[in-house]
Amino acid sequence: MFEPDPNVSGVIKAAVLALDLVGTFVFAVSGAMAAVTRRLDFFGIMVLAFAAGNAGGITRDLLIDAVPPAAISDWRYMAVSLMAGILTFFWHRVIERLRSPVQIFDGAGLALFAVAGTEKALVFGLNPAIAAVLGMVTGIGGGIMRDVLLNDVPTVLRSEIYAIAALAGAAVVVIGRMLGLPWALVMVCGALLCFAIRIVAIRRSWRLPRASSSRQI
Amino acid sequence: MFEPDPNVSGVIKAAVLALDLVGTFVFAVSGAMAAVTRRLDFFGIMVLAFAAGNAGGITRDLLIDAVPPAAISDWRYMAVSLMAGILTFFWHRVIERLRSPVQIFDGAGLALFAVAGTEKALVFGLNPAIAAVLGMVTGIGGGIMRDVLLNDVPTVLRSEIYAIAALAGAAVVVIGRMLGLPWALVMVCGALLCFAIRIVAIRRSWRLPRASSSRQI
Amino acid sequence: MFEPDPNVSGVIKAAVLALDLVGTFVFAVSGAMAAVTRRLDFFGIMVLAFAAGNAGGITRDLLIDAVPPAAISDWRYMAVSLMAGILTFFWHRVIERLRSPVQIFDGAGLALFAVAGTEKALVFGLNPAIAAVLGMVTGIGGGIMRDVLLNDVPTVLRSEIYAIAALAGAAVVVIGRMLGLPWALVMVCGALLCFAIRIVAIRRSWRLPRASSSRQI
Repeated sequence: MFEPDPNVSGVIKAAVLALDLVGTFVFAVSGAMAAVTRRLDFFGIMVLAFAAGNAGGITRDLLIDAVPPAAISDWRYMAVSLMAGILTFFWHRVIERLRSPVQIFDGAGLALFAVAGTEKALVFGLNPAIAAVLGMVTGIGGGIMRDVLLNDVPTVLRSEIYAIAALAGAAVVVIGRMLGLPWALVMVCGALLCFAIRIVAIRRSWRLPRASSSRQI
Repeated sequence: MFEPDPNVSGVIKAAVLALDLVGTFVFAVSGAMAAVTRRLDFFGIMVLAFAAGNAGGITRDLLIDAVPPAAISDWRYMAVSLMAGILTFFWHRVIERLRSPVQIFDGAGLALFAVAGTEKALVFGLNPAIAAVLGMVTGIGGGIMRDVLLNDVPTVLRSEIYAIAALAGAAVVVIGRMLGLPWALVMVCGALLCFAIRIVAIRRSWRLPRASSSRQI
Repeated sequence: MFEPDPNVSGVIKAAVLALDLVGTFVFAVSGAMAAVTRRLDFFGIMVLAFAAGNAGGITRDLLIDAVPPAAISDWRYMAVSLMAGILTFFWHRVIERLRSPVQIFDGAGLALFAVAGTEKALVFGLNPAIAAVLGMVTGIGGGIMRDVLLNDVPTVLRSEIYAIAALAGAAVVVIGRMLGLPWALVMVCGALLCFAIRIVAIRRSWRLPRASSSRQI
């Protein structure tokens, strides 16, 4: 399935996989927490954990023709998702003590997927601008699926800065890679930037302008 | 499109097609009934019949790279879906006399798609565990699409046993095939098990535990 | 990505691209206007513009295996979508003065995508009936995505004639091409027929029969 250029080192492949799996885990927790809040049953929690954790990656893989998508062909994605669901099922009260845990895990997943998705698209030979868009899609896909399944208007469309944070993280990866900067540094900076923008935007209630009472930004 | 291993007999191909078409029909009836209940017009009923009947199979075919999906490239899927929609349009009162007809047809579609989807994934060379997951996806996809289009939280997420029934049927197919049991027997047993679990779960209001007031299953 | 038969002239390719981009623009405006109406912020408007403008084309491209889809791999789709979103953000009051602007732009997008989608499917070698269905899918996909994201029951399922208008336009393209009629004439007639059916259906409140109080059409 995953056949990068031969000159891509095994280290990078392993690191992308690790980022992807951690992203899957935290997004799966966000999906499972949303399911617990809505009083879904055990299997509903598992389904939402899998959907939130993997919708972004599956969408990316379909778009870049990496089929079957890793989330289907690699058992670890399923295992990580179900583990997140089971942990949430038993310890959701612990997770709830975090302030707005769905948002924190969602933000972490957004950051991890944005950089991992961008990197995977670059590995598949897509051009940098498209790779950044695919990183954003990978990041926002899980949250959209979670919210659509639960009949909410997706977070990405509500009023806080969201997709733009993913795009910023993806842009760091693309630019850093073009400049030949060290891979690990670029990925960490991209993920941190995305996570920081997202969390600060929530905490300070940053909002983008709406198109209502004034005609200019 | 559908290019199985040469050693797969034509009989199995024909049987998978037949199961798929019957599954499409009953799911399409469930979609059309849901549309009638919501007072949609003739074309809305046709669209929901097609969407409910084919979303699961299209998703499976995209994921295993069997493109264009059979539901698009083979006119019989469209014909069967529209036939189901038209029958429902004219005779929905007859169908309504069944107790909770959407649930019964939905359950039958779930069972047929779970086994046919698993078999098709095996034919395409996917490993057994993934094939079972794809069977489940094929089974639950139609109902999810129907409910998302009608703005309901999908049945699979509500409190009755649903996806787990599909998974049980798919597991029977995978295990039976690995043991070399007769093909027809395996398919019939898988479908019956799935259907039985689903219907008994509805009738007896079986529920999986929720994550609310106690911390353990 | 887009590799038609060598005997397909460059003129047709360019014309399909132009129709596709104009369709993307008008659908993107319909998505952005819907977002403005719901008081989404700037980025939410951009996301809905992109989703409404490109969901139909992406679905078509995934189904005919034209991956990565043009909407992802060709920067012009993104540019046109964002331009539509930005124009709507600043001048939504001007657009609002049109009577029911979402419906008018939605109808124009439906018409343009139905003919362009049909043509692209024919170019990819699909048979005529399937090409017409894919044209319809291309046409209705954007509106469905827009409405699902905003938590509405999709327009296509509500009571006005919608998908059938797209199907009529697609049929004109298929039949005209089989008869060897001039390409431009066929495309213009198909698009006009679809747009006219859709708009007249809205204005005159044409409705298809429902399945409720009588048993026959």
